Amino acid sequence: MSQRSFEILDVTLRDGSHAMRHAITEQQVIDTAKGLDQAGVNYFEVSHGDGLGGSSLQYGLSKVDELKLIEAAASVCKTSKVSVLLIPGIGIKEDLQDAVKAGAKMVRVATHVTEADVAAQHIALGRELDLKTVGFLMMAHMASVEKIVEQAKLFESYGAEVIYVTDSAGYMLPHEVTERISALKQSVDCEIGFHGHNNLSMAMANTVAAVQAGATYIDGSLRALGAGSGNTQTEVMVAVLERLGYQTGIDLYSIMDVANDVVAPFMQRPQEITGSSLIMGYSGVYSSFLLHTQTAAKKFGVDERDILVELGRMKAVGGQEDLIYDVAQSFAVKKAL
Amino acid sequence: MSQRSFEILDVTLRDGSHAMRHAITEQQVIDTAKGLDQAGVNYFEVSHGDGLGGSSLQYGLSKVDELKLIEAAASVCKTSKVSVLLIPGIGIKEDLQDAVKAGAKMVRVATHVTEADVAAQHIALGRELDLKTVGFLMMAHMASVEKIVEQAKLFESYGAEVIYVTDSAGYMLPHEVTERISALKQSVDCEIGFHGHNNLSMAMANTVAAVQAGATYIDGSLRALGAGSGNTQTEVMVAVLERLGYQTGIDLYSIMDVANDVVAPFMQRPQEITGSSLIMGYSGVYSSFLLHTQTAAKKFGVDERDILVELGRMKAVGGQEDLIYDVAQSFAVKKAL
Repeated sequence: MSQRSFEILDVTLRDGSHAMRHAITEQQVIDTAKGLDQAGVNYFEVSHGDGLGGSSLQYGLSKVDELKLIEAAASVCKTSKVSVLLIPGIGIKEDLQDAVKAGAKMVRVATHVTEADVAAQHIALGRELDLKTVGFLMMAHMASVEKIVEQAKLFESYGAEVIYVTDSAGYMLPHEVTERISALKQSVDCEIGFHGHNNLSMAMANTVAAVQAGATYIDGSLRALGAGSGNTQTEVMVAVLERLGYQTGIDLYSIMDVANDVVAPFMQRPQEITGSSLIMGYSGVYSSFLLHTQTAAKKFGVDERDILVELGRMKAVGGQEDLIYDVAQSFAVKKAL
Repeated sequence: MSQRSFEILDVTLRDGSHAMRHAITEQQVIDTAKGLDQAGVNYFEVSHGDGLGGSSLQYGLSKVDELKLIEAAASVCKTSKVSVLLIPGIGIKEDLQDAVKAGAKMVRVATHVTEADVAAQHIALGRELDLKTVGFLMMAHMASVEKIVEQAKLFESYGAEVIYVTDSAGYMLPHEVTERISALKQSVDCEIGFHGHNNLSMAMANTVAAVQAGATYIDGSLRALGAGSGNTQTEVMVAVLERLGYQTGIDLYSIMDVANDVVAPFMQRPQEITGSSLIMGYSGVYSSFLLHTQTAAKKFGVDERDILVELGRMKAVGGQEDLIYDVAQSFAVKKAL
């Protein structure tokens, strides 16, 4: 087999969990995993959308225990390896140990872009368990290039082998991706990855920019199934990167078959750029703010877009949901004047 | 009003005709046109998907006479102007004269990228009728940069004021757009336009590349409604180009409202990148080949993708539909060996 230019990591069975309201079944996992394995994808991710331990009233209850899903996926793969996402605080170390027993071979430890320090023990545990261990910097548009470099160095010092720039809100434009990936390439010895969302219709261009800047791990999902407007569309990525002369190691027709014959039939809705997802991408606000914002907008009789854009300007982060009501109220007051 | 960096021309009511199987109603046109006018779009297109005179058994019968739709659109606009598409051979000069009586103020005369010479009289007529007159080079990926420049010079000599590079198959990648637009900017005095399709998830990046290379007319459609995987999504384009510091002259919230409150509800299906549309973009084959190819694939028991990719390699053009069966047969023979 020829040398791959990079690994395309498929997140249909993890980021897609958001779009499926965490109702992915064992059979869906088995069919998708078999297809990914046959098409030549080396790594794909299986977890609750918010990572190991995410099944909860707060983040949404999983229909099927994720350990069962991980086990099912691992059991049907000849060469592909199963990755799991772990957000420290949502998942705990025991979750990772259980995932390894179920067959996981890679862990991606995810933190907000400025909080890499909470991942030290989890990354160490990943290495101890002999997993391919990845640090995943979420909402990467919210930090300066210098800050991202600083946080990546922390991940590296903990033992991460790959560090991801994650455009969780689908906010980034290609030049911003280039800037971040290039800076990391110059500053750390780890491999660099990129995970994009399509809220501004730029996921594919951002992914190409990442590869051109030296990223060797890129994420996608079949039929773009994922949070917000979905992810970079895996099967389209294979076609585009082939056209650009890269070796993907993935068979185009086979990956198209999984996307269109396996995943498309179980999707609850298509991945479009709707009003809400566009404004999330435009304002750079994380999708968990959306429901609260819609409630606040209704309560105070203001436009949800004004609230989201203002939250983006304020660089609000998860945990600051109270801000939403303050902002909504201030718009209502302005309106009344 | 501040100076616009370019004109965003909306084609929802023309390219969207394909996606609507030519069943757009007068009320849908009125509501969309009002919204575009209020949002600040200066030009939008109304015609059968295949242009004036397209309503036919061959191209699909329009539910409502396009002259009625043009008249309805023009009647509700305060500042926006209605454009019509004219493909010589499908539409005739009388169609254009009728469209002008119905209120059209712009004509885009469209030819295959190597056949600009068939447009001479129609472009001359556009100028004579005092229309903003545009030459539209379709399937622009199929010609070399030199050939496109040559054809653009023909358009210019006939009197075109704007010349479009049209990525009909959604095949182009940003560097290919940059190359073509830059070459035209250097070779003709006309303004340059770009019309993209999203089959490879690159419509937005291609549009940005076009603008950066000097294009001053760019096409989009609301919710991406159009042929294949749809067009560059107008409302997303406004958000992205604003983020990049351009003056679009269009109000983001208003254009989002037309997209999501007016157009989304009447769409027959969402604009996704499906198997067929991906392979059209990958192979660079025009969408009119698809149905014949599917028929031939079934008849000869071969994969439609093999046929399309081979047709792309052969640079097959409209009118060569017979080739489809030859190619299908040759794959069937190979398979039997």
